[in-house]
Amino acid sequence: MEKQNRSGTAGKAIRCKAAVCRNPGEPLVIEEIMVDPPKAWEIRIKILCTSLCHSDVTFWKISTGPFALFPRIFGHEAVGVVESVGEHVEEFQEGDMVVPVFHPNCRECRDCKSQKGNGCSIFGDKLVAEMPRDGTSRFKGMNGETLHHFLSVSSFSEYTVVDVVHVVKISSEFPAEKACLLSCGISTGIGAAWKVADIEEGSTVAIFGLGAVGLAVAEGARLRGASKIIGVDLNQEKFEIGKKFGVSDFINPTTCGEKNVSEVIKEITDGGVDYSFECIGLASLMEDAFNSSRVNWGKTVILGVEMHRTPLAIDTYFLLRGRTVTGCFFGGLKAKSDIPILAQKYLHKEINLDGFITHEVNFQDINNAFDLLLKGKSLRCIIWMD
Amino acid sequence: MEKQNRSGTAGKAIRCKAAVCRNPGEPLVIEEIMVDPPKAWEIRIKILCTSLCHSDVTFWKISTGPFALFPRIFGHEAVGVVESVGEHVEEFQEGDMVVPVFHPNCRECRDCKSQKGNGCSIFGDKLVAEMPRDGTSRFKGMNGETLHHFLSVSSFSEYTVVDVVHVVKISSEFPAEKACLLSCGISTGIGAAWKVADIEEGSTVAIFGLGAVGLAVAEGARLRGASKIIGVDLNQEKFEIGKKFGVSDFINPTTCGEKNVSEVIKEITDGGVDYSFECIGLASLMEDAFNSSRVNWGKTVILGVEMHRTPLAIDTYFLLRGRTVTGCFFGGLKAKSDIPILAQKYLHKEINLDGFITHEVNFQDINNAFDLLLKGKSLRCIIWMD
Repeated sequence: MEKQNRSGTAGKAIRCKAAVCRNPGEPLVIEEIMVDPPKAWEIRIKILCTSLCHSDVTFWKISTGPFALFPRIFGHEAVGVVESVGEHVEEFQEGDMVVPVFHPNCRECRDCKSQKGNGCSIFGDKLVAEMPRDGTSRFKGMNGETLHHFLSVSSFSEYTVVDVVHVVKISSEFPAEKACLLSCGISTGIGAAWKVADIEEGSTVAIFGLGAVGLAVAEGARLRGASKIIGVDLNQEKFEIGKKFGVSDFINPTTCGEKNVSEVIKEITDGGVDYSFECIGLASLMEDAFNSSRVNWGKTVILGVEMHRTPLAIDTYFLLRGRTVTGCFFGGLKAKSDIPILAQKYLHKEINLDGFITHEVNFQDINNAFDLLLKGKSLRCIIWMD
Repeated sequence: MEKQNRSGTAGKAIRCKAAVCRNPGEPLVIEEIMVDPPKAWEIRIKILCTSLCHSDVTFWKISTGPFALFPRIFGHEAVGVVESVGEHVEEFQEGDMVVPVFHPNCRECRDCKSQKGNGCSIFGDKLVAEMPRDGTSRFKGMNGETLHHFLSVSSFSEYTVVDVVHVVKISSEFPAEKACLLSCGISTGIGAAWKVADIEEGSTVAIFGLGAVGLAVAEGARLRGASKIIGVDLNQEKFEIGKKFGVSDFINPTTCGEKNVSEVIKEITDGGVDYSFECIGLASLMEDAFNSSRVNWGKTVILGVEMHRTPLAIDTYFLLRGRTVTGCFFGGLKAKSDIPILAQKYLHKEINLDGFITHEVNFQDINNAFDLLLKGKSLRCIIWMD
C-alpha cells in the first residue's frame, strides 16, 4: 500500500524544473524533467536550497572515462523537505526537513556500527552514479531520455530522490541555508579537525587551500583552541577572510622567494606544525603538507581528491621519525549521528556557519554560482529553489 | 674531583678487546683498543653480552657516502655494567646494570616531556657517528688511530662509552641475555604493536617480514588479543617459528601465483587487516602493506628503514577512504620509561623473550653471528663477552 501525501503527488512522477548539464564544462540548462516516485528505502525530497561544492565542478569538467556521465543533474549540498517516502521507510515522513549527504551511513553494517571510521561497508564501495540499490535513475527528460544522478544526491532539481542511507533528518526550525552547509563542505572541514586530526588545545595547524573546506578546518581548529593556524593560499585576499575563522598566519607561496612553503612553516613553528591539512587535491601540495608537519607526532590529513591520481610520494625516513598521513571523506563524520551534533553546536552559537555564505542566487541564475566559485570569489553561494 | 671506582680504572683509558670493522662488508677483527674515560654526562660500560641487529648489517655493508665510516665498532643491542661515570652523572653509578639504546631520551626537552611520540628534540636529530655532545670518539686503535662509534652505542667491544641519554638502568637480577633483547629489536616490535598501532582485542594484523622485529610485532599483537596474525615472508620455515609468537596465518609471496599478497590478505580478512606492519625496509613491501589494510580505519606502520631512500608511493584515494600510514623508530617507546615496563612484563611472564634467542656464541666467534643472520637462520644470536 502506498502512503498518500497531502499534495496528492505520492506514487506519481512529478514534473518540475532541474538544472541539467548536457555536456562537460557547459553551462547548466534549466529544463522541465520528470522525477519518478521513490522506490523502497528511498524518499523524494522537495529541495529548499542547494549550494555549489568544488566536487560538482570537478566532475562537471570530466569529459572522458567512467565518471563522465551526461546528461546529468549535479548538486550534492542541499536541504529539503520530504514530499513522499517509498516502501519500508520508517525513519522519515512527509514534511520532515532533511539534509542529503553523498557519504552513506546505513547504521547496520559492521563499519557503520563501529566507533572507528565513517565508511559504510554496504553502500560505500564506490561513487555510485545512479540510485545505490538498483542502479537505475529516477530522472527523465520530457522526451523520455535518462538523466544521470550525481553522488547519490542530485540537488540541482526542484525534486530529487535519495536513498535513506544518504539522508539525515534535521529540526524544521533550523535555518535552511545553514542546514545546507552541513550537507558537505563545512562538515568535512570541521570533522577533519575534530574527528580525524583530533586537534588539542595549543596545537599548531597549517591548512593548504582556504576554500570553504579549508576555512572550515580553521574553524574547527579555532574551536579546539589551536595556538597558531597558518593558512596557505595563492589568493592573498584569503588572509582577511580567514581571520574570521581563526587563521592567524598566512603564506602566499608566490611570495616565499627561494624557500619552500614547508621551510617557512617550519621556521614560524620551531620545527613544523602538529597538524597539516591538504584541501585542494594536488599531490605536490600533499607533499608540502607532509613536509610541514613536525617530527614525533605531526599528522597530515588529506581532504582533497587528487583527480589526476598522481600518487603521493613520501620519503619513509620522515615517517620513521613519527609522522603520520591519513585522509578522509566527509571529515570522518558519520552523517546520521554527527550532523545533528554540528547543528546543535550552531544553535548554541559555538560554530560560525554564517560567514561561509558569501552569495545567494535564485535557481535560474545557478550558472552565476559556477562563475563565482571558479573565480575564487565565493565560499558558498546559496541557490534558492523558490 | 673524579669519582674513583673499585677497580681503580676510573679516569684512565682502558685497554680491552673490540671487534673492529676495518672495511665495509668485511669480517670483523678482534683487536686490542683503548677506550677513553667518560666525559661529562657519559658513562663507561663493561659489556656483558651483545647481539646482532639488522641495522648493524645494513650499515656494515655501506661503502660510500656520509654513513660509510671505517674503521668502526658496530653493535647497538647490548647489556652491561657501569664501570665508571663522568662528571654530572647522577642517574648511574658503578655497578649498575644498564641497557644502552640507540634512540635518545633526555627527559628534559619538550618532546621527551610530551606524552606523544618518542623522539628527543635535543639529541634525536640525526644518526650521530661519534659521541653526541662533542662529536669526538672515545675509541683508539693501539697505533693511535680513531675508531668510529656506531649509533651512539658501539657494543662490539668489552668496554664502551655512552651518553646518559642513551642508557637505561635495569635491575641486576634481570637475566643479562634477555635484557640485551630489550635494547633494540624486540622493544621496537612490541612497542610498534602497543604504542604506535595500539592494537585492540579481536583485530586482524599482517606483518611483512618475520625477522626478530616482525616476530616481536606478532608477540605484541598476540598479547593484545589479535584474532588473526598473518605473517608474510619468503622463508617458509618462518611459519613454524612464527606460531610461537602468535602467527596464525602465513603467506609466502612466491606461492601466491597471479595474485598480489595484498589481494590474498584481503580475501582471508574480508577486506583487509586492521593493522599492517612493514619490517624489512623496501618501498614495494610498504605499498603492499598499505594496500593490505582495510578501508575506514586500516593503519600501516613502517618499521623498516628504506636504505635506498625509494619513496613510498600512495594512491591518495585510498587514504581518503580512511587509511593511515605512520612509522616509528624504537617502536614509539621512550627508552627510560618504557624499557623498565617491558622488563617487568617479562618477569611477570607476560612477554615471550626466550623464544627470540636462537643462538649464542663467544665474542671471538662474532662473525658467526653475521653468517647466521645473513642466512636467515637466527633470530637473535647472543654474543657473550666472557
